Amino acid sequence: MKIINSISGMRKLALKWKQEGLSVALVPTMGFFHEGHLSLMKAAGSKADHVVVSLFVNPAQFGSNEDLNHYPRDLEHDAKLAEDKGVSCLFCPDAKDIYPPGFQTWVRVEGVSQRLCGTSRPEHFRGVATIVAKLLIIVQPDMAIFGQKDFQQLQVIRRMVSDLNIPVNIIAHPIVREPDGLAMSSRNTYLDAQERESALSLVQAIRLAEKMVALGNRSGPEVIQAIRNHIQSFGNTKIDYVFIGDPESLKPCREIVDETLLALAVWVGKTRLIDNTLLKQ
Amino acid sequence: MKIINSISGMRKLALKWKQEGLSVALVPTMGFFHEGHLSLMKAAGSKADHVVVSLFVNPAQFGSNEDLNHYPRDLEHDAKLAEDKGVSCLFCPDAKDIYPPGFQTWVRVEGVSQRLCGTSRPEHFRGVATIVAKLLIIVQPDMAIFGQKDFQQLQVIRRMVSDLNIPVNIIAHPIVREPDGLAMSSRNTYLDAQERESALSLVQAIRLAEKMVALGNRSGPEVIQAIRNHIQSFGNTKIDYVFIGDPESLKPCREIVDETLLALAVWVGKTRLIDNTLLKQ
Repeated sequence: MKIINSISGMRKLALKWKQEGLSVALVPTMGFFHEGHLSLMKAAGSKADHVVVSLFVNPAQFGSNEDLNHYPRDLEHDAKLAEDKGVSCLFCPDAKDIYPPGFQTWVRVEGVSQRLCGTSRPEHFRGVATIVAKLLIIVQPDMAIFGQKDFQQLQVIRRMVSDLNIPVNIIAHPIVREPDGLAMSSRNTYLDAQERESALSLVQAIRLAEKMVALGNRSGPEVIQAIRNHIQSFGNTKIDYVFIGDPESLKPCREIVDETLLALAVWVGKTRLIDNTLLKQ
Repeated sequence: MKIINSISGMRKLALKWKQEGLSVALVPTMGFFHEGHLSLMKAAGSKADHVVVSLFVNPAQFGSNEDLNHYPRDLEHDAKLAEDKGVSCLFCPDAKDIYPPGFQTWVRVEGVSQRLCGTSRPEHFRGVATIVAKLLIIVQPDMAIFGQKDFQQLQVIRRMVSDLNIPVNIIAHPIVREPDGLAMSSRNTYLDAQERESALSLVQAIRLAEKMVALGNRSGPEVIQAIRNHIQSFGNTKIDYVFIGDPESLKPCREIVDETLLALAVWVGKTRLIDNTLLKQ
Protein backbone atom coordinates (compact mmCIF):
# COMPACT_ATOMS: atom_id res chain seq x y z
CA MET A 1 0.00 0.00 0.00
CA LYS A 2 1.27 3.45 -0.95
CA ILE A 3 0.98 6.33 1.51
CA ILE A 4 0.80 9.58 -0.44
CA ASN A 5 0.90 13.04 1.08
CA SER A 6 1.15 15.32 -1.94
CA ILE A 7 -1.80 16.32 -4.09
CA SER A 8 0.31 16.06 -7.25
CA GLY A 9 1.50 12.56 -6.28
CA MET A 10 -2.07 11.42 -5.72
CA ARG A 11 -3.20 12.91 -9.01
CA LYS A 12 -0.35 11.22 -10.88
CA LEU A 13 -1.10 7.77 -9.47
CA ALA A 14 -4.84 8.09 -10.14
CA LEU A 15 -4.14 9.23 -13.71
CA LYS A 16 -1.83 6.26 -14.27
CA TRP A 17 -4.58 3.84 -13.18
CA LYS A 18 -7.08 5.63 -15.41
CA GLN A 19 -4.75 5.31 -18.39
CA GLU A 20 -4.37 1.60 -17.65
CA GLY A 21 -8.15 1.25 -17.72
CA LEU A 22 -8.37 0.33 -14.02
CA SER A 23 -11.34 1.40 -11.92
CA VAL A 24 -10.87 3.35 -8.70
CA ALA A 25 -13.08 3.63 -5.60
CA LEU A 26 -12.51 6.44 -3.12
CA VAL A 27 -13.33 6.13 0.58
CA PRO A 28 -13.06 9.59 2.20
CA THR A 29 -12.36 9.40 5.95
CA MET A 30 -11.06 11.39 8.89
CA GLY A 31 -9.10 8.34 10.09
CA PHE A 32 -9.10 6.49 13.44
CA PHE A 33 -10.63 3.55 11.67
CA HIS A 34 -13.30 1.34 13.21
CA GLU A 35 -15.28 -1.53 11.71
CA GLY A 36 -17.51 0.97 9.92
CA HIS A 37 -14.57 2.36 7.94
CA LEU A 38 -13.20 -1.10 7.32
CA SER A 39 -16.48 -2.29 5.90
CA LEU A 40 -16.48 0.70 3.52
CA MET A 41 -13.00 -0.32 2.37
CA LYS A 42 -14.07 -3.92 1.92
CA ALA A 43 -17.12 -2.91 -0.10
CA ALA A 44 -14.96 -0.58 -2.19
CA GLY A 45 -12.49 -3.38 -2.86
CA SER A 46 -15.25 -5.63 -4.12
CA LYS A 47 -16.35 -3.02 -6.67
CA ALA A 48 -13.15 -1.50 -8.06
CA ASP A 49 -9.63 -2.47 -9.11
CA HIS A 50 -8.04 0.03 -6.74
CA VAL A 51 -9.22 1.53 -3.46
CA VAL A 52 -7.97 4.95 -2.38
CA VAL A 53 -8.70 5.87 1.23
CA SER A 54 -8.28 9.55 1.98
CA LEU A 55 -7.41 10.38 5.58
CA PHE A 56 -7.82 14.04 6.39
CA VAL A 57 -9.19 15.56 9.58
CA ASN A 58 -10.82 18.43 7.75
CA PRO A 59 -10.64 21.64 9.82
CA ALA A 60 -13.27 23.29 7.61
CA GLN A 61 -16.03 20.97 8.82
CA PHE A 62 -15.45 21.65 12.52
CA GLY A 63 -17.07 24.63 14.22
CA SER A 64 -14.90 26.90 16.36
CA ASN A 65 -16.17 25.27 19.57
CA GLU A 66 -15.92 21.72 18.28
CA ASP A 67 -13.48 18.87 18.79
CA LEU A 68 -10.96 19.45 15.97
CA ASN A 69 -7.95 19.53 18.27
CA HIS A 70 -8.76 16.40 20.23
CA TYR A 71 -10.34 14.44 17.38
CA PRO A 72 -8.72 10.97 17.73
CA ARG A 73 -5.78 10.23 15.42
CA ASP A 74 -3.57 7.16 14.92
CA LEU A 75 -2.03 7.17 11.46
CA GLU A 76 0.27 4.21 12.01
CA HIS A 77 -2.51 1.91 13.19
CA ASP A 78 -4.84 3.20 10.47
CA ALA A 79 -2.22 2.41 7.82
CA LYS A 80 -1.95 -1.17 9.07
CA LEU A 81 -5.73 -1.66 9.09
CA ALA A 82 -6.11 -0.20 5.59
CA GLU A 83 -3.29 -2.33 4.21
CA ASP A 84 -4.94 -5.44 5.69
CA LYS A 85 -8.11 -4.54 3.78
CA GLY A 86 -6.23 -4.49 0.48
CA VAL A 87 -6.33 -0.71 0.08
CA SER A 88 -3.98 0.44 -2.73
CA CYS A 89 -3.31 3.95 -1.49
CA LEU A 90 -3.78 5.95 1.68
CA PHE A 91 -3.97 9.63 0.73
CA CYS A 92 -3.02 11.84 3.70
CA PRO A 93 -2.68 15.42 2.49
CA ASP A 94 -1.48 18.24 4.74
CA ALA A 95 -3.99 20.90 5.79
CA LYS A 96 -1.61 23.59 4.49
CA ASP A 97 -1.77 22.05 1.00
CA ILE A 98 -5.54 21.56 1.04
CA TYR A 99 -6.17 25.07 2.38
CA PRO A 100 -3.13 27.11 1.31
CA PRO A 101 -2.77 30.79 2.27
CA GLY A 102 -5.36 32.85 0.42
CA PHE A 103 -7.78 29.92 0.03
CA GLN A 104 -11.25 31.41 -0.42
CA THR A 105 -13.42 29.09 -2.53
CA TRP A 106 -16.31 27.21 -0.94
CA VAL A 107 -18.84 24.78 -2.32
CA ARG A 108 -22.18 25.31 -0.68
CA VAL A 109 -25.20 23.03 -1.06
CA GLU A 110 -28.02 25.23 0.09
CA GLY A 111 -31.26 23.44 1.00
CA VAL A 112 -30.20 20.03 2.28
CA SER A 113 -27.31 21.53 4.29
CA GLN A 114 -29.50 23.84 6.30
CA ARG A 115 -31.75 21.49 8.24
CA LEU A 116 -30.93 18.77 10.82
CA CYS A 117 -27.21 18.98 11.70
CA GLY A 118 -26.98 22.21 9.67
CA THR A 119 -28.95 24.07 12.35
CA SER A 120 -26.44 23.50 15.13
CA ARG A 121 -23.39 23.22 12.83
CA PRO A 122 -23.95 26.07 10.34
CA GLU A 123 -20.71 25.78 8.31
CA HIS A 124 -20.21 22.02 8.71
CA PHE A 125 -21.61 20.93 5.36
CA ARG A 126 -19.88 23.75 3.51
CA GLY A 127 -16.64 22.21 4.80
CA VAL A 128 -17.78 18.70 3.87
CA ALA A 129 -18.92 19.65 0.36
CA THR A 130 -15.73 21.58 -0.34
CA ILE A 131 -13.31 18.87 0.80
CA VAL A 132 -15.24 16.12 -1.00
CA ALA A 133 -15.35 18.20 -4.21
CA LYS A 134 -11.59 18.68 -3.97
CA LEU A 135 -10.94 14.97 -3.31
CA LEU A 136 -13.18 13.93 -6.21
CA ILE A 137 -11.40 16.38 -8.53
CA ILE A 138 -7.95 15.22 -7.40
CA VAL A 139 -8.58 11.45 -7.41
CA GLN A 140 -11.25 11.35 -10.18
CA PRO A 141 -12.56 8.01 -8.91
CA ASP A 142 -15.21 5.96 -10.69
CA MET A 143 -17.07 5.67 -7.41
CA ALA A 144 -16.94 7.02 -3.87
CA ILE A 145 -18.38 5.21 -0.86
CA PHE A 146 -19.93 6.87 2.18
CA GLY A 147 -21.48 5.42 5.31
CA GLN A 148 -25.21 5.89 5.74
CA LYS A 149 -24.66 6.87 9.37
CA ASP A 150 -23.91 10.38 8.13
CA PHE A 151 -27.13 10.38 6.16
CA GLN A 152 -27.36 14.13 5.67
CA GLN A 153 -23.72 14.25 4.53
CA LEU A 154 -24.56 11.58 1.97
CA GLN A 155 -27.47 13.64 0.60
CA VAL A 156 -25.38 16.82 0.53
CA ILE A 157 -22.72 14.99 -1.47
CA ARG A 158 -25.22 13.36 -3.82
CA ARG A 159 -26.77 16.74 -4.52
CA MET A 160 -23.37 18.40 -5.05
CA VAL A 161 -22.14 15.68 -7.40
CA SER A 162 -25.30 15.93 -9.45
CA ASP A 163 -25.39 19.75 -9.47
CA LEU A 164 -21.71 20.17 -10.39
CA ASN A 165 -21.79 17.31 -12.95
CA ILE A 166 -18.96 15.44 -11.25
CA PRO A 167 -18.68 12.09 -13.06
CA VAL A 168 -18.66 9.73 -10.07
CA ASN A 169 -20.99 7.09 -8.73
CA ILE A 170 -21.88 7.79 -5.08
CA ILE A 171 -22.50 4.59 -3.12
CA ALA A 172 -24.18 4.45 0.29
CA HIS A 173 -23.06 1.79 2.74
CA PRO A 174 -25.31 0.58 5.61
CA ILE A 175 -24.60 1.64 9.18
CA VAL A 176 -22.23 -0.69 11.01
CA ARG A 177 -23.16 -1.21 14.67
CA GLU A 178 -21.52 -2.53 17.84
CA PRO A 179 -22.97 -5.86 19.10
CA ASP A 180 -25.31 -3.90 21.41
CA GLY A 181 -26.51 -1.70 18.54
CA LEU A 182 -24.56 1.54 19.03
CA ALA A 183 -23.69 2.98 15.63
CA MET A 184 -19.92 2.93 15.17
CA SER A 185 -18.19 6.30 15.31
CA SER A 186 -14.69 7.54 16.03
CA ARG A 187 -16.34 9.82 18.57
CA ASN A 188 -17.52 6.82 20.63
CA THR A 189 -14.00 6.77 22.11
CA TYR A 190 -14.92 9.96 23.99
CA LEU A 191 -17.59 8.14 26.05
CA ASP A 192 -16.97 6.97 29.61
CA ALA A 193 -18.69 3.83 30.90
CA GLN A 194 -21.85 5.60 32.07
CA GLU A 195 -22.12 7.67 28.88
CA ARG A 196 -21.63 4.50 26.86
CA GLU A 197 -24.85 3.20 28.49
CA SER A 198 -26.73 6.42 27.73
CA ALA A 199 -25.47 6.31 24.13
CA LEU A 200 -27.63 3.23 23.63
CA SER A 201 -30.69 5.47 23.93
CA LEU A 202 -30.25 6.44 20.25
CA VAL A 203 -30.48 2.96 18.75
CA GLN A 204 -33.15 1.97 21.27
CA ALA A 205 -35.22 4.98 20.22
CA ILE A 206 -34.83 3.94 16.59
CA ARG A 207 -35.97 0.39 17.36
CA LEU A 208 -38.91 1.81 19.33
CA ALA A 209 -39.92 3.96 16.33
CA GLU A 210 -39.60 1.03 13.96
CA LYS A 211 -41.89 -0.99 16.24
CA MET A 212 -44.50 1.79 16.41
CA VAL A 213 -44.53 2.05 12.62
CA ALA A 214 -44.70 -1.74 12.23
CA LEU A 215 -47.75 -1.67 14.51
CA GLY A 216 -49.43 0.82 12.19
CA ASN A 217 -48.65 4.22 13.69
CA ARG A 218 -48.09 6.74 10.86
CA SER A 219 -47.91 9.89 12.97
CA GLY A 220 -44.55 11.66 12.81
CA PRO A 221 -45.27 13.82 15.89
CA GLU A 222 -46.32 10.79 18.00
CA VAL A 223 -43.22 8.83 17.05
CA ILE A 224 -41.01 11.86 17.70
CA GLN A 225 -42.59 12.33 21.13
CA ALA A 226 -42.03 8.68 22.04
CA ILE A 227 -38.39 8.97 20.97
CA ARG A 228 -37.89 12.14 22.98
CA ASN A 229 -39.41 10.55 26.08
CA HIS A 230 -37.20 7.49 25.74
CA ILE A 231 -33.96 9.44 25.26
CA GLN A 232 -34.75 11.86 28.07
CA SER A 233 -35.22 8.91 30.45
CA PHE A 234 -31.45 8.36 30.24
CA GLY A 235 -28.98 10.35 32.35
CA ASN A 236 -26.65 12.86 30.74
CA THR A 237 -28.53 13.08 27.42
CA LYS A 238 -29.57 16.27 25.64
CA ILE A 239 -31.49 16.06 22.38
CA ASP A 240 -30.25 18.25 19.52
CA TYR A 241 -32.97 17.11 17.11
CA VAL A 242 -35.31 14.25 16.27
CA PHE A 243 -36.29 14.48 12.62
CA ILE A 244 -38.85 12.65 10.52
CA GLY A 245 -39.10 13.61 6.86
CA ASP A 246 -38.20 13.12 3.23
CA PRO A 247 -34.83 11.39 2.78
CA GLU A 248 -33.93 13.33 -0.37
CA SER A 249 -35.05 16.91 0.27
CA LEU A 250 -34.67 16.52 4.06
CA LYS A 251 -37.93 18.41 4.49
CA PRO A 252 -39.91 17.34 7.58
CA CYS A 253 -43.24 15.55 7.21
CA ARG A 254 -46.05 14.69 9.61
CA GLU A 255 -47.13 11.42 8.03
CA ILE A 256 -44.80 8.45 7.87
CA VAL A 257 -44.81 6.78 4.46
CA ASP A 258 -42.50 4.08 3.13
CA GLU A 259 -38.81 5.03 3.24
CA THR A 260 -39.36 8.02 5.51
CA LEU A 261 -36.14 9.15 7.16
CA LEU A 262 -35.85 9.14 10.93
CA ALA A 263 -32.67 10.90 12.05
CA LEU A 264 -31.52 12.06 15.42
CA ALA A 265 -28.66 13.89 17.09
CA VAL A 266 -28.15 13.65 20.83
CA TRP A 267 -25.52 15.02 23.17
CA VAL A 268 -24.33 12.38 25.61
CA GLY A 269 -22.22 14.32 28.07
CA LYS A 270 -19.89 16.36 25.88
CA THR A 271 -20.14 14.01 22.90
CA ARG A 272 -22.62 14.60 20.09
CA LEU A 273 -23.88 11.36 18.55
CA ILE A 274 -26.05 10.82 15.49
CA ASP A 275 -28.02 7.86 14.17
CA ASN A 276 -30.77 7.25 11.62
CA THR A 277 -32.92 4.74 9.81
CA LEU A 278 -35.31 4.60 6.89
CA LEU A 279 -38.71 3.69 8.31
CA LYS A 280 -40.54 1.02 6.31
CA GLN A 281 -44.29 0.84 6.14
CA MET B 1 -17.97 21.61 -36.44
CA LYS B 2 -20.22 19.70 -34.05
CA ILE B 3 -23.01 21.50 -32.22
CA ILE B 4 -23.74 19.65 -28.98
CA ASN B 5 -26.61 20.41 -26.63
CA SER B 6 -26.47 17.56 -24.14
CA ILE B 7 -24.07 17.41 -21.22
CA SER B 8 -23.55 13.68 -21.71
CA GLY B 9 -22.80 14.18 -25.42
CA MET B 10 -20.21 16.83 -24.61
CA ARG B 11 -18.63 14.66 -21.95
CA LYS B 12 -18.44 11.70 -24.33
CA LEU B 13 -16.73 13.69 -27.10
CA ALA B 14 -14.23 15.26 -24.68
CA LEU B 15 -13.43 11.85 -23.20
CA LYS B 16 -12.85 10.41 -26.68
CA TRP B 17 -10.34 13.17 -27.46
CA LYS B 18 -8.63 12.60 -24.12
CA GLN B 19 -8.30 8.89 -24.83
CA GLU B 20 -6.80 9.70 -28.23
CA GLY B 21 -4.22 11.88 -26.49
CA LEU B 22 -5.51 15.09 -28.09
CA SER B 23 -5.40 18.37 -26.19
CA VAL B 24 -8.51 20.49 -25.71
CA ALA B 25 -8.94 24.22 -25.13
CA LEU B 26 -12.23 25.57 -23.79
CA VAL B 27 -13.51 29.07 -24.58
CA PRO B 28 -16.52 29.81 -22.34
CA THR B 29 -18.83 32.45 -23.84
CA MET B 30 -22.36 33.83 -23.69
CA GLY B 31 -22.46 34.03 -27.50
CA PHE B 32 -23.17 36.95 -29.86
CA PHE B 33 -19.58 36.76 -30.99
CA HIS B 34 -17.48 39.80 -31.75
CA GLU B 35 -13.79 40.10 -32.65
CA GLY B 36 -12.91 39.65 -28.98
CA HIS B 37 -14.47 36.18 -28.88
CA LEU B 38 -12.99 35.29 -32.25
CA SER B 39 -9.50 36.21 -31.11
CA LEU B 40 -9.97 33.92 -28.07
CA MET B 41 -10.94 31.09 -30.43
CA LYS B 42 -7.96 31.79 -32.67
CA ALA B 43 -5.58 31.80 -29.70
CA ALA B 44 -7.15 28.58 -28.42
CA GLY B 45 -6.73 26.94 -31.82
CA SER B 46 -3.03 27.80 -31.84
CA LYS B 47 -2.51 26.06 -28.49
CA ALA B 48 -4.65 22.89 -28.58
CA ASP B 49 -5.71 20.11 -30.97
CA HIS B 50 -9.40 20.82 -30.41
CA VAL B 51 -11.27 23.97 -29.42
CA VAL B 52 -14.59 23.72 -27.58
CA VAL B 53 -16.58 26.94 -27.40
CA SER B 54 -19.36 26.87 -24.85
CA LEU B 55 -22.29 29.17 -25.57
CA PHE B 56 -24.57 29.63 -22.60
CA VAL B 57 -26.30 32.80 -21.47
CA ASN B 58 -25.96 31.95 -17.82
CA PRO B 59 -29.02 33.10 -15.84
CA ALA B 60 -27.18 32.66 -12.56
CA GLN B 61 -24.77 35.49 -13.28
CA PHE B 62 -27.47 38.06 -14.00
CA GLY B 63 -29.08 40.03 -11.17
CA SER B 64 -32.87 40.21 -11.05
CA ASN B 65 -32.85 43.74 -12.52
CA GLU B 66 -30.28 42.98 -15.18
CA ASP B 67 -30.44 42.32 -18.91
CA LEU B 68 -30.83 38.51 -19.03
CA ASN B 69 -33.97 38.63 -21.15
CA HIS B 70 -32.71 41.03 -23.79
CA TYR B 71 -29.09 39.89 -23.80
CA PRO B 72 -28.29 39.65 -27.55
CA ARG B 73 -28.45 36.17 -29.11
CA ASP B 74 -27.77 34.86 -32.62
CA LEU B 75 -26.91 31.17 -32.54
CA GLU B 76 -26.92 30.65 -36.30
CA HIS B 77 -24.49 33.48 -36.99
CA ASP B 78 -22.34 32.48 -34.00
CA ALA B 79 -22.10 28.93 -35.33
CA LYS B 80 -20.87 30.20 -38.70
CA LEU B 81 -18.26 32.45 -37.10
CA ALA B 82 -17.00 29.68 -34.82
CA GLU B 83 -16.79 27.21 -37.67
CA ASP B 84 -14.74 29.72 -39.70
CA LYS B 85 -12.30 29.91 -36.81
CA GLY B 86 -11.75 26.14 -36.89
CA VAL B 87 -13.65 25.43 -33.67
CA SER B 88 -14.28 21.66 -33.26
CA CYS B 89 -17.37 21.87 -31.10
CA LEU B 90 -19.92 24.45 -30.05
CA PHE B 91 -21.43 23.35 -26.73
CA CYS B 92 -24.86 24.94 -26.22
CA PRO B 93 -26.51 23.34 -23.19
CA ASP B 94 -30.06 24.13 -22.13
CA ALA B 95 -30.60 26.10 -18.93
CA LYS B 96 -32.93 23.36 -17.68
CA ASP B 97 -30.10 20.82 -17.93
CA ILE B 98 -27.50 23.10 -16.35
CA TYR B 99 -29.84 24.12 -13.51
CA PRO B 100 -32.35 21.26 -13.20
CA PRO B 101 -35.21 21.39 -10.67
CA GLY B 102 -33.78 21.16 -7.15
CA PHE B 103 -30.40 22.59 -8.15
CA GLN B 104 -28.86 24.06 -4.99
CA THR B 105 -25.05 23.88 -5.17
CA TRP B 106 -23.01 27.06 -5.57
CA VAL B 107 -19.30 27.69 -5.84
CA ARG B 108 -18.40 30.89 -4.05
CA VAL B 109 -15.00 32.60 -4.21
CA GLU B 110 -15.14 34.89 -1.24
CA GLY B 111 -12.56 37.70 -1.21
CA VAL B 112 -11.95 38.53 -4.86
CA SER B 113 -15.67 38.30 -5.69
CA GLN B 114 -16.70 40.92 -3.19
CA ARG B 115 -14.98 44.05 -4.41
CA LEU B 116 -15.31 46.01 -7.71
CA CYS B 117 -18.19 44.53 -9.73
CA GLY B 118 -19.13 42.38 -6.71
CA THR B 119 -20.38 45.44 -4.86
CA SER B 120 -23.10 46.32 -7.37
CA ARG B 121 -23.60 42.72 -8.61
CA PRO B 122 -23.58 40.69 -5.36
CA GLU B 123 -24.36 37.22 -6.80
CA HIS B 124 -22.72 37.71 -10.20
CA PHE B 125 -19.43 35.95 -9.46
CA ARG B 126 -21.17 33.11 -7.63
CA GLY B 127 -22.97 32.47 -10.92
CA VAL B 128 -19.74 32.79 -12.91
CA ALA B 129 -17.71 30.51 -10.64
CA THR B 130 -20.44 27.87 -10.58
CA ILE B 131 -20.97 27.71 -14.34
CA VAL B 132 -17.24 27.71 -15.07
CA ALA B 133 -16.67 24.93 -12.50
CA LYS B 134 -19.42 22.90 -14.17
CA LEU B 135 -18.02 23.50 -17.68
CA LEU B 136 -14.50 22.57 -16.58
CA ILE B 137 -15.79 19.38 -14.95
CA ILE B 138 -17.86 18.44 -18.01
CA VAL B 139 -15.28 19.24 -20.71
CA GLN B 140 -12.10 18.56 -18.66
CA PRO B 141 -10.04 20.74 -21.00
CA ASP B 142 -6.26 21.08 -20.79
CA MET B 143 -6.69 24.84 -20.89
CA ALA B 144 -9.43 27.46 -20.78
CA ILE B 145 -9.08 30.93 -22.28
CA PHE B 146 -10.70 34.08 -20.91
CA GLY B 147 -10.55 37.68 -22.06
CA GLN B 148 -8.73 40.12 -19.82
CA LYS B 149 -11.57 42.62 -20.27
CA ASP B 150 -13.41 40.76 -17.51
CA PHE B 151 -10.36 41.06 -15.29
CA GLN B 152 -12.13 40.34 -12.01
CA GLN B 153 -13.84 37.31 -13.54
CA LEU B 154 -10.42 36.03 -14.59
CA GLN B 155 -9.08 36.38 -11.04
CA VAL B 156 -12.17 34.71 -9.55
CA ILE B 157 -11.70 31.78 -11.91
CA ARG B 158 -7.95 31.53 -11.30
CA ARG B 159 -8.57 31.45 -7.57
CA MET B 160 -11.36 28.87 -7.89
CA VAL B 161 -9.32 26.58 -10.12
CA SER B 162 -6.40 26.73 -7.71
CA ASP B 163 -8.54 26.30 -4.57
CA LEU B 164 -10.59 23.39 -5.94
CA ASN B 165 -7.54 21.70 -7.53
CA ILE B 166 -9.11 21.68 -11.00
CA PRO B 167 -6.39 20.44 -13.40
CA VAL B 168 -6.62 23.12 -16.08
CA ASN B 169 -4.37 25.87 -17.33
CA ILE B 170 -6.16 29.25 -17.24
CA ILE B 171 -4.96 31.57 -20.02
CA ALA B 172 -5.64 35.30 -20.11
CA HIS B 173 -6.12 36.96 -23.49
CA PRO B 174 -5.54 40.71 -24.02
CA ILE B 175 -8.50 43.05 -24.47
CA VAL B 176 -9.59 43.45 -28.09
CA ARG B 177 -10.67 46.99 -28.97
CA GLU B 178 -12.60 48.74 -31.72
CA PRO B 179 -10.48 51.01 -33.96
CA ASP B 180 -11.37 53.99 -31.74
CA GLY B 181 -10.37 52.13 -28.60
CA LEU B 182 -13.72 50.98 -27.13
CA ALA B 183 -13.27 47.56 -25.54
CA MET B 184 -15.32 45.01 -27.47
CA SER B 185 -18.42 43.72 -25.68
CA SER B 186 -21.69 42.13 -26.72
CA ARG B 187 -23.34 44.86 -24.67
CA ASN B 188 -21.96 47.57 -27.00
CA THR B 189 -24.90 46.72 -29.28
CA TYR B 190 -27.17 48.37 -26.70
CA LEU B 191 -25.57 51.80 -27.29
CA ASP B 192 -27.17 54.46 -29.48
CA ALA B 193 -24.97 56.90 -31.45
CA GLN B 194 -24.67 59.43 -28.66
CA GLU B 195 -23.99 56.76 -26.00
CA ARG B 196 -21.41 55.25 -28.32
CA GLU B 197 -19.52 58.57 -28.08
CA SER B 198 -19.79 58.66 -24.30
CA ALA B 199 -18.62 55.04 -24.12
CA LEU B 200 -15.24 56.27 -25.34
CA SER B 201 -14.78 57.99 -21.99
CA LEU B 202 -13.64 54.66 -20.48
CA VAL B 203 -10.71 54.02 -22.79
CA GLN B 204 -9.82 57.71 -22.84
CA ALA B 205 -9.73 57.71 -19.04
CA ILE B 206 -7.43 54.69 -19.15
CA ARG B 207 -5.09 56.39 -21.61
CA LEU B 208 -5.12 59.50 -19.43
CA ALA B 209 -4.15 57.43 -16.38
CA GLU B 210 -1.38 55.71 -18.30
CA LYS B 211 -0.02 59.09 -19.33
CA MET B 212 -0.10 60.42 -15.75
CA VAL B 213 1.80 57.36 -14.53
CA ALA B 214 4.28 57.58 -17.43
CA LEU B 215 4.94 61.19 -16.35
CA GLY B 216 5.78 59.99 -12.83
CA ASN B 217 2.53 60.35 -10.88
CA ARG B 218 2.24 57.44 -8.41
CA SER B 219 -0.81 58.65 -6.50
CA GLY B 220 -3.83 56.36 -6.79
CA PRO B 221 -6.26 59.01 -5.45
CA GLU B 222 -4.99 61.65 -7.90
CA VAL B 223 -5.28 59.34 -10.88
CA ILE B 224 -8.75 58.22 -9.77
CA GLN B 225 -9.87 61.84 -9.44
CA ALA B 226 -8.59 62.69 -12.93
CA ILE B 227 -10.44 59.68 -14.33
CA ARG B 228 -13.66 60.62 -12.56
CA ASN B 229 -13.43 64.19 -13.84
CA HIS B 230 -12.87 63.01 -17.39
CA ILE B 231 -15.75 60.52 -17.41
CA GLN B 232 -18.14 62.95 -15.76
CA SER B 233 -17.43 65.47 -18.50
CA PHE B 234 -19.34 63.18 -20.89
CA GLY B 235 -23.13 63.23 -21.14
CA ASN B 236 -25.16 60.27 -19.92
CA THR B 237 -22.36 58.65 -17.87
CA LYS B 238 -22.60 57.45 -14.27
CA ILE B 239 -19.56 55.96 -12.59
CA ASP B 240 -20.06 52.67 -10.73
CA TYR B 241 -16.43 52.43 -9.60
CA VAL B 242 -12.90 53.46 -10.47
CA PHE B 243 -10.47 51.08 -8.80
CA ILE B 244 -6.71 51.08 -8.39
CA GLY B 245 -5.17 48.16 -6.54
CA ASP B 246 -3.50 44.78 -6.48
CA PRO B 247 -4.37 42.67 -9.55
CA GLU B 248 -4.37 39.37 -7.62
CA SER B 249 -6.06 40.10 -4.31
CA LEU B 250 -8.09 42.99 -5.80
CA LYS B 251 -7.39 45.01 -2.67
CA PRO B 252 -7.16 48.76 -3.29
CA CYS B 253 -3.87 50.62 -2.88
CA ARG B 254 -2.91 54.28 -2.75
CA GLU B 255 0.49 54.03 -4.40
CA ILE B 256 0.81 52.91 -7.99
CA VAL B 257 3.60 50.36 -8.45
CA ASP B 258 4.42 48.27 -11.50
CA GLU B 259 1.51 46.11 -12.70
CA THR B 260 -1.07 47.89 -10.58
CA LEU B 261 -4.59 47.23 -11.78
CA LEU B 262 -6.77 50.10 -12.94
CA ALA B 263 -10.35 48.93 -13.47
CA LEU B 264 -13.55 50.86 -14.01
CA ALA B 265 -17.26 50.32 -14.47
CA VAL B 266 -19.42 53.05 -15.91
CA TRP B 267 -23.08 53.25 -16.80
CA VAL B 268 -23.61 54.84 -20.19
CA GLY B 269 -27.34 55.36 -20.36
CA LYS B 270 -28.79 51.99 -19.39
CA THR B 271 -25.69 50.03 -20.38
CA ARG B 272 -23.00 49.15 -17.87
CA LEU B 273 -19.53 49.01 -19.43
CA ILE B 274 -16.23 47.88 -17.91
CA ASP B 275 -12.63 48.31 -18.93
CA ASN B 276 -9.21 47.93 -17.31
CA THR B 277 -5.46 48.02 -17.75
CA LEU B 278 -2.35 47.09 -15.84
CA LEU B 279 -0.47 50.30 -15.15
CA LYS B 280 3.26 50.06 -15.82
CA GLN B 281 5.79 52.14 -13.95
